[in-house]
Amino acid sequence: MSGDLKQVIVLKDDIDISKGKEISQAAHASLGAYRKASDKKVSEWDNQGMKKIVVSSGDRRLEDLYEECKRKSIPAYLVKDAGMTEVKPGTVTALGIGPAESDKIDTVTGELKLIG
Amino acid sequence: MSGDLKQVIVLKDDIDISKGKEISQAAHASLGAYRKASDKKVSEWDNQGMKKIVVSSGDRRLEDLYEECKRKSIPAYLVKDAGMTEVKPGTVTALGIGPAESDKIDTVTGELKLIG
Repeated sequence: MSGDLKQVIVLKDDIDISKGKEISQAAHASLGAYRKASDKKVSEWDNQGMKKIVVSSGDRRLEDLYEECKRKSIPAYLVKDAGMTEVKPGTVTALGIGPAESDKIDTVTGELKLIG
Repeated sequence: MSGDLKQVIVLKDDIDISKGKEISQAAHASLGAYRKASDKKVSEWDNQGMKKIVVSSGDRRLEDLYEECKRKSIPAYLVKDAGMTEVKPGTVTALGIGPAESDKIDTVTGELKLIG
């Protein structure tokens, strides 16, 4: 039994981008992490309603959270913006994590603040 | 040759939901439409950098835009919220369209306003 699954989208806290841009980066992170998850996990997540949570990185670096996911074998995808429009090339803007077990993801993102 | 591909995420204009909720609905729309696209289209879109555009539905109904996509054989996915938190069950909140040819999607969403 794998328990509750979720995907967490972490958005960089202190970045000045437009709402539309932020949404497209979040969608990119979601899709990227989805493509790294196993078919089995995706299928279970799908059956559970594809729960997604959006949080802010606060004072954590997205790169560090990403490395932590990799160490813990949690599928994750770091979005680096091509920088053609609003930010400098290579700016890290979002991190997609999972689908994976909720409690496993919480060991990485449990302290981060939900974006309400 | 298939030309420029993009994905368009249409968000319902007059809905009162939180930013985090809106982002998760947008990601859901993006993922849903992605899963309806052919492997070939996905692969081409991937190679082109997975362009995503976020627009507002304005005075159009998401259901009507969705039907138009279906008539034109453009992969699309309509997000109906389960309504457990902020909105009434079954509320349509977002529509994902594509990846598909830019000019083909524009015949459906070309008049809609970009969310900047």
